[in-house]
Amino acid sequence: MAEVVRARLHVATGVVPAALTPMDDNGNPNVTLLEQHCRRLLAQGCTSILILGTTGEANSFTIAERRAILENVVAGGIPADKLIVGTGCCAVGDSVELTRHALSTGVQRVLMLPPFFYKSVNDQGIFDAFASTIERVNDDRLRLFLYLIPQVSGIEMSADLVERLHQEFPTIVVGLKDSSGNWPATETLCRRLGPSMYVMVGTEALLLRAMDAGASGCISATANVAAQAIIALYDKRNDPNAASLERGVNATRVAFENFPLIPALKTYMALTSGVAAWRNVRPPLNQLTPTETSQLLRRVQELR
Amino acid sequence: MAEVVRARLHVATGVVPAALTPMDDNGNPNVTLLEQHCRRLLAQGCTSILILGTTGEANSFTIAERRAILENVVAGGIPADKLIVGTGCCAVGDSVELTRHALSTGVQRVLMLPPFFYKSVNDQGIFDAFASTIERVNDDRLRLFLYLIPQVSGIEMSADLVERLHQEFPTIVVGLKDSSGNWPATETLCRRLGPSMYVMVGTEALLLRAMDAGASGCISATANVAAQAIIALYDKRNDPNAASLERGVNATRVAFENFPLIPALKTYMALTSGVAAWRNVRPPLNQLTPTETSQLLRRVQELR
Repeated sequence: MAEVVRARLHVATGVVPAALTPMDDNGNPNVTLLEQHCRRLLAQGCTSILILGTTGEANSFTIAERRAILENVVAGGIPADKLIVGTGCCAVGDSVELTRHALSTGVQRVLMLPPFFYKSVNDQGIFDAFASTIERVNDDRLRLFLYLIPQVSGIEMSADLVERLHQEFPTIVVGLKDSSGNWPATETLCRRLGPSMYVMVGTEALLLRAMDAGASGCISATANVAAQAIIALYDKRNDPNAASLERGVNATRVAFENFPLIPALKTYMALTSGVAAWRNVRPPLNQLTPTETSQLLRRVQELR
Repeated sequence: MAEVVRARLHVATGVVPAALTPMDDNGNPNVTLLEQHCRRLLAQGCTSILILGTTGEANSFTIAERRAILENVVAGGIPADKLIVGTGCCAVGDSVELTRHALSTGVQRVLMLPPFFYKSVNDQGIFDAFASTIERVNDDRLRLFLYLIPQVSGIEMSADLVERLHQEFPTIVVGLKDSSGNWPATETLCRRLGPSMYVMVGTEALLLRAMDAGASGCISATANVAAQAIIALYDKRNDPNAASLERGVNATRVAFENFPLIPALKTYMALTSGVAAWRNVRPPLNQLTPTETSQLLRRVQELR
């Protein structure tokens, strides 16, 4: 039954990069670079691309900027059905606007944070926020992935809450991204919800274990710079040498995680593309220092 | 010298309520009720009113709604120079828009959160976010109070960082609100920055100690429902019976803090005003249950 329902829906499986958002020296989005980046990632075999997630610095852009970025990416020729877009804000009204806008561009899949300013809110409050958003968007085409990233959002969403939202909106709340990095929590989500929802883990470090437990794939920051290796791991997850592939992928991720992750990934993009603007980030993030840049380069070269 | 500079500025001293934002049953702001509430608080002796802070559910409103709330309050006759407005968002562009808008209504004083989505950011990143905001607003009339509320924002701002911002923008970054509730941290801020900045504590529980250490007053959620008692405490802070007044004020605060604070304060406003709409909150907050409401009422009656 779950398979029948899923077959009718836009799915999320495989390796989905959480795309960086390149910008010019004034911090304005550089959509040409973003389109090129998306095209390359799709050519490398990524099944879809998440734009304007945490790695894409979504919350450092205004609503108007976020709308323009998505519009430009779609207008630039990236197929709308290959895109997932982050639309979760603190204010339900903003999440509604961005989600409606995504649908208007042909993008049906959104990844949605819970409202993340207030902490210690209860499950009912989070349920109400998502339910209110979905009801106000009021569009059957919507496919919503709940975004669990408690170490950043400060909001814990239990498996019970996720399941309740899925049961209330079975054809809309079809998946989740779990970026907790906390294997026991991830395993619970995979085993309990994997049969009925698309469970995407937020790091390739847990990809093999999560797939075994019922996940559909991963949405990964590292995939900006190492998509092919992660796709190889996904494709060969049942091969005898999967563990060896996993070690290689993990070494790459660790090399970047020794630095502030988003600036490090952008610096690497600048170094490998020769486009210096790739280094730009928006405050409160800042660029790697020259010393950090040298260290990162050395660490990445050691992996070769 | 500090006194000379301060005398030329809009100040913040005394007891400033962090106003609740009343709304109708659909969650739309009820500006008539908000104006009435502000008028009553000023009549009770509050020196200024903070609107659209944490207690005012600012981050649950869109930018357009926040602009409209402020415009309506000013148009309704609340003097702009009695208002402080919260304008800090995750995106610098949004903070710039709200701050410029505040100035356009005649409100010079803003309370500004640091960008609060990304965690583990460094001091330079937070400095850059505030500096960029101030430079883009580019208006000498601006008086900016830094908003330290790490347990909600997830962002720690050190005394060093506050001081650096004050030194870089001495006539603009003139104060701070410290809602940490952490006395050693508050004391450091008061002693080090009280001589040159307006240090407002975020709870009347620390008012006496903070005033002794150099603070200028408090910005208080409880003042929505107990302004006169807190003002009496402020006025008589050097009297022999100040400790007794403080105990009374603290008992009131504790009675509300046993419940989710904002819904509890709104419920109390509904009970005392007879206006049921006062109970409304926006998700992710939710109203007190009937049981909680009865418990709250009993606790408050016990205080009398």
